[in-house]
Amino acid sequence: MEKFEVHILGCGSALPTMRHNPSSQVVNVRNKLFMIDCGEGTQLQLRRSRLPFTRINHVFVSHLHGDHCFGLMGMISTFGMLHRNGPLFIHSHERLQELLRPQLDFFCSDIGYEVVFQPFNPSEETIVYDDRSVAVSTIPLSHRIPTCGFLFREKPTRSMREQGLADTVRSYAYCSDTCYLPKLSEQVKDVSMLYHEATFSETEQLRAKQTFHSTARQAAQVAKDACAKRLVIGHFSSRYDDETQILREAQEVFPSVELAHENMKMEIL
Amino acid sequence: MEKFEVHILGCGSALPTMRHNPSSQVVNVRNKLFMIDCGEGTQLQLRRSRLPFTRINHVFVSHLHGDHCFGLMGMISTFGMLHRNGPLFIHSHERLQELLRPQLDFFCSDIGYEVVFQPFNPSEETIVYDDRSVAVSTIPLSHRIPTCGFLFREKPTRSMREQGLADTVRSYAYCSDTCYLPKLSEQVKDVSMLYHEATFSETEQLRAKQTFHSTARQAAQVAKDACAKRLVIGHFSSRYDDETQILREAQEVFPSVELAHENMKMEIL
Repeated sequence: MEKFEVHILGCGSALPTMRHNPSSQVVNVRNKLFMIDCGEGTQLQLRRSRLPFTRINHVFVSHLHGDHCFGLMGMISTFGMLHRNGPLFIHSHERLQELLRPQLDFFCSDIGYEVVFQPFNPSEETIVYDDRSVAVSTIPLSHRIPTCGFLFREKPTRSMREQGLADTVRSYAYCSDTCYLPKLSEQVKDVSMLYHEATFSETEQLRAKQTFHSTARQAAQVAKDACAKRLVIGHFSSRYDDETQILREAQEVFPSVELAHENMKMEIL
Repeated sequence: MEKFEVHILGCGSALPTMRHNPSSQVVNVRNKLFMIDCGEGTQLQLRRSRLPFTRINHVFVSHLHGDHCFGLMGMISTFGMLHRNGPLFIHSHERLQELLRPQLDFFCSDIGYEVVFQPFNPSEETIVYDDRSVAVSTIPLSHRIPTCGFLFREKPTRSMREQGLADTVRSYAYCSDTCYLPKLSEQVKDVSMLYHEATFSETEQLRAKQTFHSTARQAAQVAKDACAKRLVIGHFSSRYDDETQILREAQEVFPSVELAHENMKMEIL
């Protein structure tokens, strides 16, 4: 089976802890690497992962909160020092370019590659990347600011088509940050793996609502309604010293669930 | 004796490694905490240090290379989430304000404290902070862009004056990044502790010159000429898997030398 993996670089929420880094993941589709979000410290997590990071050509940013993008400047700068030469595409809300451009011009004037911003509207479902292996589309979410998730859908190879397996293509959905969004299950229907934020436990239901985050039970409900094959939850609040309770709550609704953790590698089956 | 300590949060150079974080230190003078430089990941190192970070009111930035300031946004943002209310003063080259302000306005519009920029000219020796416990002055250095070090000089307490110990005040000098600067020894004459960059070993002498960095031997020569009591070297190039050779080279010139490492705490005697 062709490679389709997800590497968790960080699955904590806004306040960094000793246990969790802020959000970042790398999706490996047939040895093309796609980064989703890039919180502070992502470049170090990337190094730790031993992923060949010259293969990362696209970064998808879910929303413009610091814990999802403060690692970009350091990573871009480091790629420059490592003599990267191919362009790096950053797919995000249009504001990111104007926020990063002055710093890029100042700190990264000497890098030997181009940083190309590809703005999109996170409120609309749209295809942001497409090649012969994979299509990536946005999943509009509901958070305090414009936010979207990303759906990676594998494309059938020639040999899959020849074997009549063209309908068995796999998919991965990243949904963070968002409040509980029942209709989300439609867009991620039958997804092979769903990563959904579960910032809070049931006891913090009100806080989840106020801050436009989800509880573990709500994440599990989305997975259940979507008939997802597998659910991974993350974006844990810094208030939890371990996430056993969070896992338990999700399991009650959707048994095929796992807690994300740093340096976790998941194969999409 | 009144508290006068230095905590190393990061002592690597531009390329982050698994062994070293980028530059950052905290100087504790009588329980007032002063940060010097703030590379990416500093807020996490600060958490690891268990220093009471609400006591950090001043950050001194030596120069505007990313490995000395990319951690500022994340730290400022986190301080906001932790309900800081006192102002945070950032002492740096004037360009930093215009580079950070758009991001501060966007990402940190809701923090409950003020970020106050205090620009200085790194090419001039000048006092950038002064209270009844300590005076901090800049030490002009020679790097690829305008850069300065910082000299912390303790002030005598009343009891020290009464005991005739007013002349025994202690001092700490931070000198990074810089090429070998023989005249530097004059400004840090008789310093109690000198932190000097030693990015390279002797074998990379040419590279040190080209990149405006120092070798371990050069750092030691400055300490020797200054009659420093103690030398700590840091800002190690990522090319070294351990710094034994670097230490050895410095020791040949100045025996009272130590390698910096993350989470190191040094008392100024």
